[in-house]
Amino acid sequence: MSNKMWGGRFASGPDAIMEEINASIDFDRHLYRQDITASKAHAEMLAKQGIIAADDAKSIAHGLDTILSEIEQGKFSFQRALEDIHMNVESRLTDIVGPAAGRLHTARSRNDQVATDFRLWVRDTIDTIDAALAGYQKALATKAAEHAETVMPGFTHLQTAQPVTFGHHLLAYVEMTARDRGRFADARKRLNESPLGSGALAGTSFDLDREMTAKALGFDRPTANSLDAVSDRDFVMETLAAASIAAVHLSRFAEEIVIWTSPIVGLVKLTDKFTTGSSIMPQKRNPDAAELVRAKAGRIIGALNGILIVMKGLPLAYAKDMQEDKEGAMDALSALSLAIAAMTGMVADMVPDEAKMKKAAGEGYATATDLADWLVRTLNIPFRQAHHITGRIVALASEKGVPLHRLTLADMQGVEPKITDDVFNVLSVTNSVKSRVSYGGTAPKNVRAQAKRWLKILAK
Amino acid sequence: MSNKMWGGRFASGPDAIMEEINASIDFDRHLYRQDITASKAHAEMLAKQGIIAADDAKSIAHGLDTILSEIEQGKFSFQRALEDIHMNVESRLTDIVGPAAGRLHTARSRNDQVATDFRLWVRDTIDTIDAALAGYQKALATKAAEHAETVMPGFTHLQTAQPVTFGHHLLAYVEMTARDRGRFADARKRLNESPLGSGALAGTSFDLDREMTAKALGFDRPTANSLDAVSDRDFVMETLAAASIAAVHLSRFAEEIVIWTSPIVGLVKLTDKFTTGSSIMPQKRNPDAAELVRAKAGRIIGALNGILIVMKGLPLAYAKDMQEDKEGAMDALSALSLAIAAMTGMVADMVPDEAKMKKAAGEGYATATDLADWLVRTLNIPFRQAHHITGRIVALASEKGVPLHRLTLADMQGVEPKITDDVFNVLSVTNSVKSRVSYGGTAPKNVRAQAKRWLKILAK
Amino acid sequence: MSNKMWGGRFASGPDAIMEEINASIDFDRHLYRQDITASKAHAEMLAKQGIIAADDAKSIAHGLDTILSEIEQGKFSFQRALEDIHMNVESRLTDIVGPAAGRLHTARSRNDQVATDFRLWVRDTIDTIDAALAGYQKALATKAAEHAETVMPGFTHLQTAQPVTFGHHLLAYVEMTARDRGRFADARKRLNESPLGSGALAGTSFDLDREMTAKALGFDRPTANSLDAVSDRDFVMETLAAASIAAVHLSRFAEEIVIWTSPIVGLVKLTDKFTTGSSIMPQKRNPDAAELVRAKAGRIIGALNGILIVMKGLPLAYAKDMQEDKEGAMDALSALSLAIAAMTGMVADMVPDEAKMKKAAGEGYATATDLADWLVRTLNIPFRQAHHITGRIVALASEKGVPLHRLTLADMQGVEPKITDDVFNVLSVTNSVKSRVSYGGTAPKNVRAQAKRWLKILAK
Amino acid sequence: MSNKMWGGRFASGPDAIMEEINASIDFDRHLYRQDITASKAHAEMLAKQGIIAADDAKSIAHGLDTILSEIEQGKFSFQRALEDIHMNVESRLTDIVGPAAGRLHTARSRNDQVATDFRLWVRDTIDTIDAALAGYQKALATKAAEHAETVMPGFTHLQTAQPVTFGHHLLAYVEMTARDRGRFADARKRLNESPLGSGALAGTSFDLDREMTAKALGFDRPTANSLDAVSDRDFVMETLAAASIAAVHLSRFAEEIVIWTSPIVGLVKLTDKFTTGSSIMPQKRNPDAAELVRAKAGRIIGALNGILIVMKGLPLAYAKDMQEDKEGAMDALSALSLAIAAMTGMVADMVPDEAKMKKAAGEGYATATDLADWLVRTLNIPFRQAHHITGRIVALASEKGVPLHRLTLADMQGVEPKITDDVFNVLSVTNSVKSRVSYGGTAPKNVRAQAKRWLKILAK
Repeated sequence: MSNKMWGGRFASGPDAIMEEINASIDFDRHLYRQDITASKAHAEMLAKQGIIAADDAKSIAHGLDTILSEIEQGKFSFQRALEDIHMNVESRLTDIVGPAAGRLHTARSRNDQVATDFRLWVRDTIDTIDAALAGYQKALATKAAEHAETVMPGFTHLQTAQPVTFGHHLLAYVEMTARDRGRFADARKRLNESPLGSGALAGTSFDLDREMTAKALGFDRPTANSLDAVSDRDFVMETLAAASIAAVHLSRFAEEIVIWTSPIVGLVKLTDKFTTGSSIMPQKRNPDAAELVRAKAGRIIGALNGILIVMKGLPLAYAKDMQEDKEGAMDALSALSLAIAAMTGMVADMVPDEAKMKKAAGEGYATATDLADWLVRTLNIPFRQAHHITGRIVALASEKGVPLHRLTLADMQGVEPKITDDVFNVLSVTNSVKSRVSYGGTAPKNVRAQAKRWLKILAK
Repeated sequence: MSNKMWGGRFASGPDAIMEEINASIDFDRHLYRQDITASKAHAEMLAKQGIIAADDAKSIAHGLDTILSEIEQGKFSFQRALEDIHMNVESRLTDIVGPAAGRLHTARSRNDQVATDFRLWVRDTIDTIDAALAGYQKALATKAAEHAETVMPGFTHLQTAQPVTFGHHLLAYVEMTARDRGRFADARKRLNESPLGSGALAGTSFDLDREMTAKALGFDRPTANSLDAVSDRDFVMETLAAASIAAVHLSRFAEEIVIWTSPIVGLVKLTDKFTTGSSIMPQKRNPDAAELVRAKAGRIIGALNGILIVMKGLPLAYAKDMQEDKEGAMDALSALSLAIAAMTGMVADMVPDEAKMKKAAGEGYATATDLADWLVRTLNIPFRQAHHITGRIVALASEKGVPLHRLTLADMQGVEPKITDDVFNVLSVTNSVKSRVSYGGTAPKNVRAQAKRWLKILAK
Repeated sequence: MSNKMWGGRFASGPDAIMEEINASIDFDRHLYRQDITASKAHAEMLAKQGIIAADDAKSIAHGLDTILSEIEQGKFSFQRALEDIHMNVESRLTDIVGPAAGRLHTARSRNDQVATDFRLWVRDTIDTIDAALAGYQKALATKAAEHAETVMPGFTHLQTAQPVTFGHHLLAYVEMTARDRGRFADARKRLNESPLGSGALAGTSFDLDREMTAKALGFDRPTANSLDAVSDRDFVMETLAAASIAAVHLSRFAEEIVIWTSPIVGLVKLTDKFTTGSSIMPQKRNPDAAELVRAKAGRIIGALNGILIVMKGLPLAYAKDMQEDKEGAMDALSALSLAIAAMTGMVADMVPDEAKMKKAAGEGYATATDLADWLVRTLNIPFRQAHHITGRIVALASEKGVPLHRLTLADMQGVEPKITDDVFNVLSVTNSVKSRVSYGGTAPKNVRAQAKRWLKILAK
Repeated sequence: MSNKMWGGRFASGPDAIMEEINASIDFDRHLYRQDITASKAHAEMLAKQGIIAADDAKSIAHGLDTILSEIEQGKFSFQRALEDIHMNVESRLTDIVGPAAGRLHTARSRNDQVATDFRLWVRDTIDTIDAALAGYQKALATKAAEHAETVMPGFTHLQTAQPVTFGHHLLAYVEMTARDRGRFADARKRLNESPLGSGALAGTSFDLDREMTAKALGFDRPTANSLDAVSDRDFVMETLAAASIAAVHLSRFAEEIVIWTSPIVGLVKLTDKFTTGSSIMPQKRNPDAAELVRAKAGRIIGALNGILIVMKGLPLAYAKDMQEDKEGAMDALSALSLAIAAMTGMVADMVPDEAKMKKAAGEGYATATDLADWLVRTLNIPFRQAHHITGRIVALASEKGVPLHRLTLADMQGVEPKITDDVFNVLSVTNSVKSRVSYGGTAPKNVRAQAKRWLKILAK
């Protein structure tokens, strides 16, 4: 990768350096489908508007179809000397259809062409990612439905705080992912305007029908300002911002998987589908996939940062700096797709150790809040005072080395005489989670309802 | 700022360090209004649900109003020992209303409380920024309408490419800003759910009416998952992503202003309202405000990067790391507001040197594309061939040292015999911009229409 | 913080905006000591070179001393209208010493002045940080010496891999910190050149003795190029890069503390000096300080990113963008200092649960590698084959549900007949760590030697 | 690049995803030379220490040489199923030398192996970059020597401030580059310790001679702590930090080239070796190479940010996240090398328009400071007062529409009676630059001396 240019090539002088730094065909070839589709739409519009002859448009369309199939069959020979995907295609078109090819670039410039191509590519990629995220949500919601009643320790500060259900925990990620999908959808909506017909920067004097090409390419409308249209890379920045936040979400779950599958924690097991073993330590299951998902956040945020830096302080209109928009975005969105796929696989693969989860959920007086709430609700004690009483009862249990529900009623009444037998109903982890019925709370019935709601939405 | 903690204080031991790193009152005091509003809504709901007595709710509301007015009048004494805004307010409330204050925190936790407060703060700030951006658009569109016909050089690669109008250039920023406002609006919509009632992480066993508090606080609905609600800082990340892209847009215009106001370029003048002079060089007008706007992009992108890094890999639910969400966001959004204000002022202040603009627009054979397009349109020559012919004519003009419109018809016919006198209609910069009538093009009539459209929208 | 400028102030027009964005006194006041020291050195040199009179230099020095003491006693009134620390000081100097004050700025410009001041400030701050890092190393090495034999599980992928000692683990951070100190020292060395005398950008025609001021200010030499000297902010970028890497190191240990102190892991305890409790759950010790240290990495990397973005693409020489160098650096280096102090405190405070550590170290067949190495060393079996045999023995132990050292010799010989009784010597965690005597290995004698070496170095 | 994994492959299940995310051979194959060199050193040491037989070591060395030549001749078949470069090499070694290959991995782990390989790779790359930077300095200093007397406008805030020489401006970049080389050299020094022999994380019980392998591989010494050795990626972070600052420097000059070659500025010309033309506008020379150099800063800073994020919060020792260290570093350092090469080429290629530079240098009363300094020096007027007088004289010249040196002596004496004829000696741009003889100043004799000094250093 890196060494090819450091050796003799540069010694051969400026030509080699200039080609190396300038040519984009190594990465913009990935836009071939979008480039060809956009050219076909452009040619058809030119013909309809009488700017080129119908026959020429037909030849062009035919030639472009041929090129598409050549590329897809691996028969197309990309040439660095032709710099980019646009010139590679046009040059081959000339071979195939002759002089008519020279009419394709009428009323167009590489500036609006590449803006169109890359918007289409980003849009296609958003669609693929959205589908992958929906699949991830489905895996989560399915597992959540199975584990609506599986009690686990709920953490704050990684300290055991209150019992929750495993299903509830999984649904938290469904919510995050819903917001991620919302961000991608908004980015898609905002980018869905056609720059085609903006020319080099100033528009054109030809009588174009930009609505027609916009429609043909699935855009909602043409862009309203030609200078903006060729200078704008908001669609890359916004899509990478959405990708970065999504990657952060995935990294949070990945971190949990790494912690949960550690033998000193052991709340969850992954099979060897998503771990790497060691022939020497057969019990070892390194959560490599989760670690790599966690790490991908770095790469993706790095790419977001990169394009923001590239665009900072660039005068209008097109500048060559903008050619740096593609590699980072392609790499980052590819990494995100891979991370979503890996995480979806891990969700389906993971098996909680229910006994261990339940036991851990009950440690550390995790139902102390339930006791305090009982004091408030049943004895009408102000919360701050109930909080204080609970502290004294927990201290007593701690001294005696027993969990809360092993204290006697007398023990409790020693602290607060009005406490009744009824209090024991709230001290088990199972009753604790059952009681959290407020909207959004962890009660199994809430979890079942939410999982069902999501599965219904996702079935559409 | 930085030195206070480096000297003797730490020598006095862990207490000083822990207070220094842990207390948030120095910055979360800015949330006082949101904290009080949310507490009032919470107390009212608790009373309506019969969880606390109506009288207590009344006392609490009264006490909170008193505190609000104390803070706004600068009479409130914030105490570091009380750590944060929530405890400062509650402690003072106890002074004012006595034991009833102890009932306010029923069915609530600092985790859902701070999530609610900071969402409200970010939402308020988005509203302020949106208004500022609208003001900026108005300044741009107003100036654009004035300069719909002012011809200036259109640049690509900072090379003179084709003539455009100054109004068209300004409208490009109106478009960018419209997307910025769209991003802020989407972020606002997405954040507008109420975490209040999610408790520490698991929801609560009290019979809350979360719809009621959500509505009272202007939220669209309560959040659906308590674990997500207290762990989520998407609203900070997304808002800072929108702010970063907006800052990049501002930095681009700022860069242009720095270049344009350089005496070796001289396309635009700023008054001393937005420049700093030098008593020794009275002609010097350093564009300090533009430079600072350009630089603010660094700070804002840095803050976005910071929060993404903080959130990366954090297990659910609340972790203290999240306390690092506020200072960066407050600083960055404040910097953005300042940058928008400065840029709005500069737009109103700037005066283009129309003569210099027009002259520069005509240099460098900027109408060569017009000639090529004429050949295509009038003589039906394929674009690539027209392009080639134009190259030869420009080369001839260059040899003769004259602009295109100073060549004779004979000169041109020497290259392409079919050229007629009509060609001279497209060679002046004025006619060039007039001819770009395609939708989104730079023709004055387009610019006038777009400016008008925007001013109408912005008048609402 | 953020709201003051968003309300009515901007309505009052450009003046308010310009002052708000332009004035730097709110943060560059922290440079007061450096500014005064540099001015004194400059005046003394001017007098020595005969550029100003000796009496004037004396008055200036006296006036500057007065100002220093006014500032340190909180009696100095900083004025925003005077923009920055330089003008605030010079203006007050005029009050005190009269016309002589007007000679201080001879052969100097604010551009070289601020570059000098901020270099001095960064240098002072590096010195403070270096001392703090040395203190942190000392705390680590002291604890490591105490725990040279305390066996704990060594992790890879957070999976138990091989036993190590707690002391060895702590010393890993001593090594990282040594590199951090090396980076700060290199940054200090590289920044330690005096820009004073570079003028606005071009040098000066006065016969300065730049060596003299350089020496007086503790610089190694004057800078060699005036344009570079006033445009350079490498010292900020490099220092923040060193700070970012140091912050990453701290965040790694902070993460370990968060995991280790989780009740489901429980390898280490912190007292309430560095945790926050909960009156309701008295056993809860939220590791707030560790979480905040972990989070500070985001802020510090954000500041590094910010200054890199500010400097990217700035033409020479001074540009106002560079004024954005200070707030981010001050905030980030302050955060780093605080994080080091907190971590130093936590190291001293933490108590490992030795029994739990030892037990966890032995789980998961952590000595399997020792067995494989024994096969290689004693039976001369090729490593890859030994690896394979070990895998089969571990599988056997796993089937039987026993640790390796509970297998019988017969069991082992069933897999590899040549195994002898001697093998049991390598299967305990204590013997395992004892055997790792290769340089850098975890053997207690290595750990003791390294801890001793470091404590000796740090005692200097 | 990105699409291969998004289509049908993942449908085929977890295996495909796991291979895709886990395998590193696509990029770590670039480490083949370092991997083989390190293995040879390791085998030789094992034999010398009697851990493996001399004959086996011989076979291994021979086999590794064969593999090296196979790879360099493109005859080696890398296999994804073997995951990484280490297993690809070892597997092939087994084919070639049989069972002896199984002894190579004795007392080694992939964790210390990859740490060693990548350190060697980064070290090699630093050496290549250092040589390229030296070449860049040479091009700059050579050009500077040629233009020691070429007067150009010196800018602050992109406003004409004082005249400087073109050579002086170029030498500013020589200074920056010297600091860059210093940073790379320091990073190299700090990374130059051998992790080999640290094992998986705990060291080893074999009697290794780590000094021997360290020496054989050109390292200064072995690392002192095995846990640190396998967990450390400081060398990547520090090298990318140095690369980022270097990229920022290049971006600054790139920005200047873009501005200077704009036809509305026209201070410098590039040939078509480093510009792209347009067949239609033959005078157009788009500075594509400079724009791309400017943009590379984004990619490189993005990579630095990425690795900092990856490493943040990672517990010891090795985690798979660290595998994300390579692609970003390889891409960024390759981009930097390319940018240096392009910039070196542009420096040699660029031709200043001396007449235009000189004319621009004299505009805007750029010698006003010279006048003020004359008043101080000759008439002993305090600087602040001299500054004020100069302001009045410039205002007079401005009113009269003449440059300073076209005012009459009487004009000047009208403002300050003591002014004499001698003043005219300092008012021309040529005399201005000549007078800036203070060390580091722009005087041609300084520039000549500095250029000579550098060329002498660089000749070594």
